Amino acid sequence: MTTIDEMPLTEAQIERRKLVAEKHAQAQELLRKQGIDCWLTFSREGSDLLLPFVMGGEYLVGQAALFIFADGPSVAIVADYDRGQVEGEFDIIHAYSSDWKVPFAQVLEERKPQTLAINYSESDFGIDGLTHGLYLRLTNTLKALNYNGRLTSSDSITTLVRALKTPTEIERIRRACEITERIFDDVTGMVRPGLTEMEVHEFINERMSTYGVTPSWEGAYCPAVTTSRRPAGHTPPSADKIQAGDGLQIDFGVLYEGYASDLQRLWYFKRPGETAVDPKIQHAFETMRDGIAMAAELIKPGMRGYEIDEPVREYVKKQGYTYSHALGHQIGRMAHDGGLTMGPRNERYGDRVMGEILPGMCFTLEPCIFDIGLEENIYVTETGCEWFVKPQLEPIVL
Amino acid sequence: MTTIDEMPLTEAQIERRKLVAEKHAQAQELLRKQGIDCWLTFSREGSDLLLPFVMGGEYLVGQAALFIFADGPSVAIVADYDRGQVEGEFDIIHAYSSDWKVPFAQVLEERKPQTLAINYSESDFGIDGLTHGLYLRLTNTLKALNYNGRLTSSDSITTLVRALKTPTEIERIRRACEITERIFDDVTGMVRPGLTEMEVHEFINERMSTYGVTPSWEGAYCPAVTTSRRPAGHTPPSADKIQAGDGLQIDFGVLYEGYASDLQRLWYFKRPGETAVDPKIQHAFETMRDGIAMAAELIKPGMRGYEIDEPVREYVKKQGYTYSHALGHQIGRMAHDGGLTMGPRNERYGDRVMGEILPGMCFTLEPCIFDIGLEENIYVTETGCEWFVKPQLEPIVL
Repeated sequence: MTTIDEMPLTEAQIERRKLVAEKHAQAQELLRKQGIDCWLTFSREGSDLLLPFVMGGEYLVGQAALFIFADGPSVAIVADYDRGQVEGEFDIIHAYSSDWKVPFAQVLEERKPQTLAINYSESDFGIDGLTHGLYLRLTNTLKALNYNGRLTSSDSITTLVRALKTPTEIERIRRACEITERIFDDVTGMVRPGLTEMEVHEFINERMSTYGVTPSWEGAYCPAVTTSRRPAGHTPPSADKIQAGDGLQIDFGVLYEGYASDLQRLWYFKRPGETAVDPKIQHAFETMRDGIAMAAELIKPGMRGYEIDEPVREYVKKQGYTYSHALGHQIGRMAHDGGLTMGPRNERYGDRVMGEILPGMCFTLEPCIFDIGLEENIYVTETGCEWFVKPQLEPIVL
Repeated sequence: MTTIDEMPLTEAQIERRKLVAEKHAQAQELLRKQGIDCWLTFSREGSDLLLPFVMGGEYLVGQAALFIFADGPSVAIVADYDRGQVEGEFDIIHAYSSDWKVPFAQVLEERKPQTLAINYSESDFGIDGLTHGLYLRLTNTLKALNYNGRLTSSDSITTLVRALKTPTEIERIRRACEITERIFDDVTGMVRPGLTEMEVHEFINERMSTYGVTPSWEGAYCPAVTTSRRPAGHTPPSADKIQAGDGLQIDFGVLYEGYASDLQRLWYFKRPGETAVDPKIQHAFETMRDGIAMAAELIKPGMRGYEIDEPVREYVKKQGYTYSHALGHQIGRMAHDGGLTMGPRNERYGDRVMGEILPGMCFTLEPCIFDIGLEENIYVTETGCEWFVKPQLEPIVL
């Protein structure tokens, strides 16, 4: 009995329904291909299992069960007060007032799924959304309905539903990248020796607020603003003043309508009399830039993650540098979107680098070396890849 | 190799270490009382298991195992890049570079805990932090170490660690309430007939930004701004204009250094010639106010949740109103902090109303009736309870 139903849909709601429909269609296609007849998302307040996906029902509070059937409708069982969250997003909605188990048993009885793929994964945190308490609640309920023994991990579905971005998702990431780029331009207009890293950090916070976006990862480290005299990475900004002769690296991304960017840019502050960038910084920059360009040339559907990482890592090594992290991770609902990674074949990355690159996947490219960094974002097409925004080709010299 | 270690501690870091020490001491006392020798928090990026507690290690990314021993040290096993997150918060830190299982086996070998209490709960989402994938990883690891069969739910510990606020936590909630009250005062200075609910909502957003706080729950519904002509509750603000003769209810809270407030205030806009509040609204307001005062009088350590709810519900009923929700929920790290509730004995609230009220617990009091609301926040002392901020005694008449 809320007034939500009576209000005309906002543009954001229309956009959201379109996106949910795209993702449901994609999930059904994957279920059919893989011969799984039902994907079940079992959730309640505080479960973050919907975090890496948009499957409808963004802020469900009560116990909910969201079914996507391979050859049937999408069905949402939600508490009555959560009905507005799934309206227009699922084909069938059961809004219960007291007992979720009644419609739950009914849906199983009607559809008789042979397999229920549920959201857990030992290895990938991003698709490991079902809490153990909820798992117990689900298995106890299924047992009482004589429906036990049909559970399996949904990881082969969720990995791809998360990774394969639809056109709407790609446009949102592009917009996040464009806003990030605009904020970098704003930084170019204000940054100068004498300012502290913290002051640049605060300026970027203010710009995010103006553009109506939030940081893509924990705000204390996003943006990460570091001069080339400090180790880069996940360190908070310091009260250190920028000096002539410094490189300044900013690792930064924004969330735009639930989708993340993750870019790095490099500035250089000339010393008195200097006409070009310090050669040490220039050489490192060019190595990263050319490594990124090499990766972008190589990326094609069907390649494995490590096959892109390997030649770039070798090239960077030949130029006299090393880095231990992966060349690139996926981006999407989160800056570190998990799943397939373009990284080296080693213990740390394990199976995550062995998967196949597919059209619609979105990656960072970041062969970052010593205390400076450069990072671009791309999406995979049918034939190769495209930049979300123009890559940086030279340090910004101030 | 980060520079975090080299920088002097910020005031926020010092405050945080103090709070973590208070919570560890509290957990150890509970473990000893309950005869459990170890509480194990097993986490990785994306696990929200630390959400309702402050146990140290706020943004851990790598696989982590945080042990609190009843009669021993606190021990953190974290990835080397996460070391800064637990520095100064745990007695012993093992920062691994590649394999967490090595120090994990070593800690078990040294301490030989008989019971490992881990964070899952079928019934309470706020302490159900261990994902099922992590549960499998943990049990597989313990099995390989011949350490299986020692797991139990930590719910009897976590329920109380969350609920019993230390002095530092109470001061943070008080500050959140004070900021909320200041923003209500700011609203009184600007609100008038002709403004829309949405405009008041946006004004409050701007004030939160000025005070450096964020909403206590989902921003689209916090603040919830509703005139008395619309059903209150979790509805987004509308483009409806405030009119003379309206009550205006705002349900709103802020997060201050990780701790939440959750208050409701009522305004009334006089019609031309009116000298007092519309009698219908005044009577409802007084009923809520007096019901809240009655609850505050009744609350004492040792009472059960339902024992406070029952007489207030009866009083409100005698005045001619009913409400179906609980009289009050706990507040803390979240606006709905879970656990013991002051609600009616029925199917919906189940065991949650049967627990004992204890000193240090913090509650809302909100016997809200029809389309207006009033909500206060209190904390339980050794002898009764105290308001966080002064309760509202009359509608604010404009």
